[in-house]
Amino acid sequence: MTVIADDSNEACPAGLVSLAEKLADVGGEIALRYFRSPLDVDTKADESPVTRADREAEAAMRAILAEEVPDHGIVGEEHGVQGADSDYVWILDPIDGTKAFITGNPIFGTLVALTYRGRPLAGVISMPALNERWVGALGHPTRHRDPQGVTSTVQVRACDDLEQAILRCTSPQMFAASARDGAAFSRLASRARLALFGGDCFCYAQLASGWVDLVVEGDLQPYDFMALLPVVEGAGGVVCDWQGQPLTLKSDGRVVCAGNTRLRDAALACLQQVA
Amino acid sequence: MTVIADDSNEACPAGLVSLAEKLADVGGEIALRYFRSPLDVDTKADESPVTRADREAEAAMRAILAEEVPDHGIVGEEHGVQGADSDYVWILDPIDGTKAFITGNPIFGTLVALTYRGRPLAGVISMPALNERWVGALGHPTRHRDPQGVTSTVQVRACDDLEQAILRCTSPQMFAASARDGAAFSRLASRARLALFGGDCFCYAQLASGWVDLVVEGDLQPYDFMALLPVVEGAGGVVCDWQGQPLTLKSDGRVVCAGNTRLRDAALACLQQVA
Repeated sequence: MTVIADDSNEACPAGLVSLAEKLADVGGEIALRYFRSPLDVDTKADESPVTRADREAEAAMRAILAEEVPDHGIVGEEHGVQGADSDYVWILDPIDGTKAFITGNPIFGTLVALTYRGRPLAGVISMPALNERWVGALGHPTRHRDPQGVTSTVQVRACDDLEQAILRCTSPQMFAASARDGAAFSRLASRARLALFGGDCFCYAQLASGWVDLVVEGDLQPYDFMALLPVVEGAGGVVCDWQGQPLTLKSDGRVVCAGNTRLRDAALACLQQVA
Repeated sequence: MTVIADDSNEACPAGLVSLAEKLADVGGEIALRYFRSPLDVDTKADESPVTRADREAEAAMRAILAEEVPDHGIVGEEHGVQGADSDYVWILDPIDGTKAFITGNPIFGTLVALTYRGRPLAGVISMPALNERWVGALGHPTRHRDPQGVTSTVQVRACDDLEQAILRCTSPQMFAASARDGAAFSRLASRARLALFGGDCFCYAQLASGWVDLVVEGDLQPYDFMALLPVVEGAGGVVCDWQGQPLTLKSDGRVVCAGNTRLRDAALACLQQVA
């Protein structure tokens, strides 16, 4: 297997991109089997709904990794961390948008990320119920395969101006834990041309495709955001936390994603502004 | 043509239901042709984005009505009102969820309603990009045709308790014009088990299918809500304004939709509570 230096910009090996897509195929297929079928919803400590679909899909994805790349590490929402000190670590989220999933809404995704020494190397945002996906990999332009099976590269659109920007965010309740964050987000939303809610990982796919300009969220976990980074960056976009720092496994879960650095900086300035 | 008395519960004639579906087919097909293709976005006085797709689709739907039922009235978002004093009036909204539409999000709908002397007789919520639809008609159970083409009747689910309810709303910004309404909605959202955003007409389809329990919105127009009523009511649900009154062409645009009267009453009490 190709060894990639920590600071290298070497392209992600094609074999690993294929493996990421295979994982998304298998995870998404199991998720779809449960979509809109009656199911028991468990409640975890954080009150997020979790389904059998999530657990089964992650187990199936892990089984493929155990077979194909047994020396790689895995981080999953359902079955925990294994081999976290491996150079290559896969980060799996079979159903991103569980709340959409349990309400029959097809805007949920299967997320697969591959990191090398903590750095995102490849990411897949697959939307099983929409039959489309976005694939990002270091050194390659982001690819979109549409519901008709047509694959093309995608690119963010040009928008420098906050007043012209379409802002996307899954829910204003993402900022409920901090009155300051809530106020900062409201300020941003009122300056943007439009603020649209819902979406989970699909928001970032929309940005990569040049359909929206800005995604600002909070309360995300690494398995929520790691797969998004190569997709957005491979389409020309930028992602950081609310201080403008790169996202890592240790980030606080607040995310700013923009089509370019000017719009990102305008958003950061607005968020950081003292009310 | 069957004449239906104003206060009758007679079933909607099958021919008119078929015509409603035909209108949804034609409108949705034109909308899809423009979906995710570069387009000019006009800005109307109310700042909502309007597309050529909207106007062309409505014109095509109107042409069918002019051909098949020239004596019926029509209310459309784009091309205005004609024959509003006819007994039968069609209410058309080729693209409900224009903001979703212009951002490549497939959760937009084509809405067709038929009223008889102001009373909703039939409604179609068609989701062209998802290839599924819900059809409601007085005297018939609501039908859902899924993306695989399988048609079945749908029913709301049992949930009497606000604390157990999943609440759906397109955007908290729907209440931006009234601080009191915004506070009332926040109170409701914090009492519900989950509050999910986004969706437009799809929220009501989710409720009819028993996937969510409550939809509370504001700032809706008759062409936004008239098609929803037969769909929700034919699945056993209830719809009213924030005072508990039936929705009419003259309603103020604030809507409460629930799976049953107990949950509706709990929601109304919460919304009307003095903070």
